[in-house]
Amino acid sequence: MLTLYDNADSGNAYKVRLILALLDIPYKRVEVDSVHGETRTPAFLRRNPNGKVPAVELADGTHLWESNALLWYFAEGTAFLPDSRMEHAELLQWMFFEQYSHETKVGVLRAWARHGPITDEQRRQIPTLEKEGYRALGVMEAHLDQRDFFVAGVPTIADLALYAYTHVSHQGGFDLSDYPAIRGWLDRIAALPGYVAITDA
Amino acid sequence: MLTLYDNADSGNAYKVRLILALLDIPYKRVEVDSVHGETRTPAFLRRNPNGKVPAVELADGTHLWESNALLWYFAEGTAFLPDSRMEHAELLQWMFFEQYSHETKVGVLRAWARHGPITDEQRRQIPTLEKEGYRALGVMEAHLDQRDFFVAGVPTIADLALYAYTHVSHQGGFDLSDYPAIRGWLDRIAALPGYVAITDA
Repeated sequence: MLTLYDNADSGNAYKVRLILALLDIPYKRVEVDSVHGETRTPAFLRRNPNGKVPAVELADGTHLWESNALLWYFAEGTAFLPDSRMEHAELLQWMFFEQYSHETKVGVLRAWARHGPITDEQRRQIPTLEKEGYRALGVMEAHLDQRDFFVAGVPTIADLALYAYTHVSHQGGFDLSDYPAIRGWLDRIAALPGYVAITDA
Repeated sequence: MLTLYDNADSGNAYKVRLILALLDIPYKRVEVDSVHGETRTPAFLRRNPNGKVPAVELADGTHLWESNALLWYFAEGTAFLPDSRMEHAELLQWMFFEQYSHETKVGVLRAWARHGPITDEQRRQIPTLEKEGYRALGVMEAHLDQRDFFVAGVPTIADLALYAYTHVSHQGGFDLSDYPAIRGWLDRIAALPGYVAITDA
């Protein structure tokens, strides 16, 4: 049996819960309190030396980590991971965009809002992160303006990666009123058969 | 002919120059002054809506961007991208680690050191970024302590992704004296047939 080292509030961990639900893959869930240091204990660092959720232990005892690598692993061979070389590049383009230019702004402001108190250093970064977060949302809005999904015209792991923090971006203070293409796309993801909400952990 | 929208000093752009050299793929190189706003012009944003180098224009006019997605694209079908599902997951695990936990500390401090002046907000972040950068280097050191390369025992795009900013980390103030496994690995990458230096742009 697969084990997911999870955190109910983490968007990165939710990506893994979501792909496992969409693919109807059974797993055992272990909640890890990442906000209070449980990802940095010696026992957890043997699972993920980088000290973050999500991490997965496969049936043979192998560990894998990094949310978007886990999306790729579980989706390989399914319709959520189209199979051409160009589509692979496009999927990864959006998934690296998500981790570098989106999660670090949209996801971080949500985490700070939910798990405060924050430091003065963090507080001073908020205006910059808000500006950069809206810039990333603008890149998504422009891409979705003429498309139903990010890659190949079908729902893929690129959508799931970007959905995780976008659909709860209001919890970090982002307002999607002026982003109608994103709002339509969020509705299409939430309508996928097998969909689970981030609050279902 | 392939066109690379490049910046001579960018480690992310260097990843693409390096894989193209290792695979002996010809390309046209266009230098973009990312430090002085040339990645945010309307003309460049049509190539990469996220406004960053590297970006690539393929012979058919298609654009791709995100350095690690480009590594995957060029390496697919070669020995730099091993072909099993588990190896794919391991490659991506380390490549997402690189973009989230390594480049954002080790690469950012190098950029600030080379392209100042920096803001007071940035200056206050330096101690945190140094601490987190050394933590990422520690994760790499522990992994390489018993291995020649990151995945599958052979040089792959995971190595190239992590090499780019690690081998010039001293330019951001990092000292690798206490990281002998990393130093040995850097030497193995620099010895690959076809290797080019970051200064060869």
